[in-house]
Amino acid sequence: MATFYSKRDLHFQLFENQNCLELLQYPYFSDHSKETFALVLDAVAQIAEKSLYPIFKEMDRQEPQLENGIVKVHPEMRAIIRQFGADGWINAIFPYEEGGQQLPWTLHLSAGFILQAANYSASVFPFLTTGAANLIRTFGSYDLRDAYTPKMYTGEWQGTMALTEPDAGSSLSDLTTLAVPTSKEGVYSIRGQKIYISAGDHDACDNVIHLMLARIEGAPAGTKGISLFVVPKIRLDGTPNDVLTQGIYHKMGYKGAPIVHLMIGSESACEGYLVGEAHQGLKYMFQMMNEARLGIGMNATAIATAAYQTSLAYAKVRPQGRNISDKEPNRPQVPIIQHADVKRMLLFQKSISEGSLALLIFCGLLGDKLSQESELQKKAEMEALLDLLIPIAKSYPSEMGVQSTSMAIQVLGGAGYTTDFPVEQYYREARIHPIHEGTTGIHGLDLLGRKMLLHEGLGWKMLQKEFQSTLKEAKPLPELSEIALIFEKYAQEFASGTAQLLFKRNQGPEYYLADATLYLEGAGLLCMGWIWLKQAITAQKALDMGSKEQDFHLGKIETARYTVAYELVKLKGIVERFESTNYPTLTMKTDWF
Amino acid sequence: MATFYSKRDLHFQLFENQNCLELLQYPYFSDHSKETFALVLDAVAQIAEKSLYPIFKEMDRQEPQLENGIVKVHPEMRAIIRQFGADGWINAIFPYEEGGQQLPWTLHLSAGFILQAANYSASVFPFLTTGAANLIRTFGSYDLRDAYTPKMYTGEWQGTMALTEPDAGSSLSDLTTLAVPTSKEGVYSIRGQKIYISAGDHDACDNVIHLMLARIEGAPAGTKGISLFVVPKIRLDGTPNDVLTQGIYHKMGYKGAPIVHLMIGSESACEGYLVGEAHQGLKYMFQMMNEARLGIGMNATAIATAAYQTSLAYAKVRPQGRNISDKEPNRPQVPIIQHADVKRMLLFQKSISEGSLALLIFCGLLGDKLSQESELQKKAEMEALLDLLIPIAKSYPSEMGVQSTSMAIQVLGGAGYTTDFPVEQYYREARIHPIHEGTTGIHGLDLLGRKMLLHEGLGWKMLQKEFQSTLKEAKPLPELSEIALIFEKYAQEFASGTAQLLFKRNQGPEYYLADATLYLEGAGLLCMGWIWLKQAITAQKALDMGSKEQDFHLGKIETARYTVAYELVKLKGIVERFESTNYPTLTMKTDWF
Repeated sequence: MATFYSKRDLHFQLFENQNCLELLQYPYFSDHSKETFALVLDAVAQIAEKSLYPIFKEMDRQEPQLENGIVKVHPEMRAIIRQFGADGWINAIFPYEEGGQQLPWTLHLSAGFILQAANYSASVFPFLTTGAANLIRTFGSYDLRDAYTPKMYTGEWQGTMALTEPDAGSSLSDLTTLAVPTSKEGVYSIRGQKIYISAGDHDACDNVIHLMLARIEGAPAGTKGISLFVVPKIRLDGTPNDVLTQGIYHKMGYKGAPIVHLMIGSESACEGYLVGEAHQGLKYMFQMMNEARLGIGMNATAIATAAYQTSLAYAKVRPQGRNISDKEPNRPQVPIIQHADVKRMLLFQKSISEGSLALLIFCGLLGDKLSQESELQKKAEMEALLDLLIPIAKSYPSEMGVQSTSMAIQVLGGAGYTTDFPVEQYYREARIHPIHEGTTGIHGLDLLGRKMLLHEGLGWKMLQKEFQSTLKEAKPLPELSEIALIFEKYAQEFASGTAQLLFKRNQGPEYYLADATLYLEGAGLLCMGWIWLKQAITAQKALDMGSKEQDFHLGKIETARYTVAYELVKLKGIVERFESTNYPTLTMKTDWF
Repeated sequence: MATFYSKRDLHFQLFENQNCLELLQYPYFSDHSKETFALVLDAVAQIAEKSLYPIFKEMDRQEPQLENGIVKVHPEMRAIIRQFGADGWINAIFPYEEGGQQLPWTLHLSAGFILQAANYSASVFPFLTTGAANLIRTFGSYDLRDAYTPKMYTGEWQGTMALTEPDAGSSLSDLTTLAVPTSKEGVYSIRGQKIYISAGDHDACDNVIHLMLARIEGAPAGTKGISLFVVPKIRLDGTPNDVLTQGIYHKMGYKGAPIVHLMIGSESACEGYLVGEAHQGLKYMFQMMNEARLGIGMNATAIATAAYQTSLAYAKVRPQGRNISDKEPNRPQVPIIQHADVKRMLLFQKSISEGSLALLIFCGLLGDKLSQESELQKKAEMEALLDLLIPIAKSYPSEMGVQSTSMAIQVLGGAGYTTDFPVEQYYREARIHPIHEGTTGIHGLDLLGRKMLLHEGLGWKMLQKEFQSTLKEAKPLPELSEIALIFEKYAQEFASGTAQLLFKRNQGPEYYLADATLYLEGAGLLCMGWIWLKQAITAQKALDMGSKEQDFHLGKIETARYTVAYELVKLKGIVERFESTNYPTLTMKTDWF
């Protein structure tokens, strides 16, 4: 059995706590059933256990190298990527007529969770290809689609997102890669540099198809002048396209996936093919960003889950010390899971990993329903709620995944710091998530500066509505009323803190946004309170119906109690901060550091 | 100039904010002067810059290996350790008659800070020797002292502390290494295993002298049956002493220092020499533990400082984005230090690293004064305060050092995750500190379960007295009165939270101690509020006197403001937790996970 994730919990999230079978009501998904969903997850779990997990350590120890212009990755990656292709995994979410399976995005996310928990580096290759192909098929011409996506779907070709440049990281609008029109329509000569390109070059695929942002000559400065191009490493006629791998980054973790530095068109011989219309590149990219960002949240959740499961298994068998009220040294030592402080460290991890999974599946389902919804008002409401939740569902798992994997190390003590156990690797890998697909600071600004204000706060209103409906369900259950009341209290305090902050807009955007990252942290905590209350309701109802898995369901309720008692209390300080008139992050001068 | 620490801040802490020259009043230290202290620090800084920092990365990349029974460390370590010996560094704090320099411990700690910031792995070798030698000279016979310490002082021999065993980590009382008396008085035959022994074997010294805990045959179980032995790797007559290096641990960070697994007496030919009296070993060890624990706090502080300085230097020169109220894309990008959220990340690190340094120097001075104090009541008060502060001064820098180095990575973004910059190495190295010399959980129990209750709470009373005296000094200063009032409010809230917790002792030790780790976290935050208020007072007074370093002093005040506004607010939630009647860490059952 896998120790890197809990199948029981994943099924709880998909079929019990939330119900992904609701999606079957939509014609697009109607051929599926609980059985096909479960089969998909089992098939993926098998690849994860048999192919990905066994090379998890190796891929870290023998990281990709650039040798004679070729990026060499783990020798098994070629077969693994092809298997993903052969199993129809890379295009599973796309329509039947494109060879896809019309699988809900939620299932794709959930399957990703299993793969990422098994081996994060290995898991990213096919997901990047899916994302790149989705850009081509959604915004590109039929010609582009037919030329490039088939071999991406089989896993023969790798897809990438090529955004970042040396001077354009968080500030994407500053990118300078240049696209000069050629005599052929839609064909541009591309020249520039791209850095930090995940799976940007490697020997496990025969070609790499970059979905690249560049600026057409003469385009306006800023975000409005950016266009999207397909830039293959090798052209369709088999000739090289002047995309040179300048170097490979050596990283703290996530080492198995090659992240490269590309020189594009240094011989003035790089062709790029415009996707959709000119100057719409950033808009296109951002329409795919929701998927990408929830994907990062899921990566973080998966790694935190694997670390939690490892430390849980260790805590159950490692004897050390005695119970606090019976320290007689002649009695044998007890497993450390019996110590309150170790339980706290495990509850912390359980709260973060299972809470994040629940939130991401909520977002996934919302996205799937939104994609099928036809009623305009309803669509707008769902979209607003999802848009609001994206920065939270990306950042909470990412930030807390770092702390959660750190806690896994702490449970193991000295052993956890050695390479004899995988927790130190999880800790190193988890650290990337608060950085990529937008740093936490960027998402704070996105939440408070954009999403909270969009459509007159519609997203925020929809979230409050969700809270209310969950509270209404919880309060009549005597076992949960206390947890519900604590959550309600914090939700009210945070709402009034939010109102305070909104007033500060009058003082100017600097004041309003100075604590945006803290606001994001608070919103994440609040969502955890809510999503854990939801889980507790499901668990309590199961218990009331005579659950045969009492331990599992009681554990859910107790973790909900932990979450409001230990995690939500942190909101006290955050809300107090919003009421402050002190702004040291604005008044501190550069020279004073 | 060194980028790994701030000489200016270290001098502020030693000569301005607190005054280590007060120590000159004691005869033991009276030969010193500000000049000799500054010389010591400069000499150490030179070794740090010229010898330690240049091999900081290399020691991580080429970690020690066990080859044919020999542990090979970085080839320059031999010369470095000898230089420490030649410079009189290893025995600097010991009396003149033993060849020492009667240097205050505070200066030793401060010099350590520089070395650890330059290269943590390289710095530990001489400090371990000092600690081991101190045990021999304090508790051992003159014969033992004369036989072993001279070559330890020259750096020819390495000293270690050999405590941990496979089944005795946090629960030291369970150690089973056996000592059987031989026909020679004070000589025992030792047999057992020791794990995680820092610098426990390596080729940079000619011998290794282990200060080892073992149980004399027939001794009572538990802590009362433990004795301390000198166990050399090679006997004085040059023959091997049956101490075998079974393996070397590969670790996430701190890789340059070899941590080994020792088999002792597997050929029944290991001699150990009793230090002091039988069964007093743990007591002896713990009398040295204060130094060791503050040392760990300082290691953590040093690494956090180096990471902070690196990220600060980066933030000053890295252009990215524009000011929030002027986003015109045709204007050049601004250095990221101008963004409020980046300032927040830098203030967070400055607050932690400089605050921790201030607290540790406070503890160091207290220790030095205590060692010279003759008045009994005063001595008892100082001892109680120091004892109370030890778990805080070990744990706050250790726990927050992890978060602080993580923030340094975040400032650099993707670059920080690569091995092109040292911040990822600082992050990996910092993670050891919440584990060694007692995990954070153990220190929580030590603070709340022992130190708070000792001598009817004398330590806690003394700390309150310190708070009051600092408040009294701050309040009349108009620029600081707001910061002072905020600190006072939290100090009062934490005091009443403490009272609440003390009442819970009636419910039994499980309830009282369930949140001990959280209590330790709160106590750390509170001490930061206090020590930053102290620094602000010093800075304000310097400004009032017409400081020529206005930037430096204004930065101190602004960081104090940040500390109460962003860090102390976290106490709100912690105190709320103490008032709770929910105890999920006690009620959660093992099978519910």
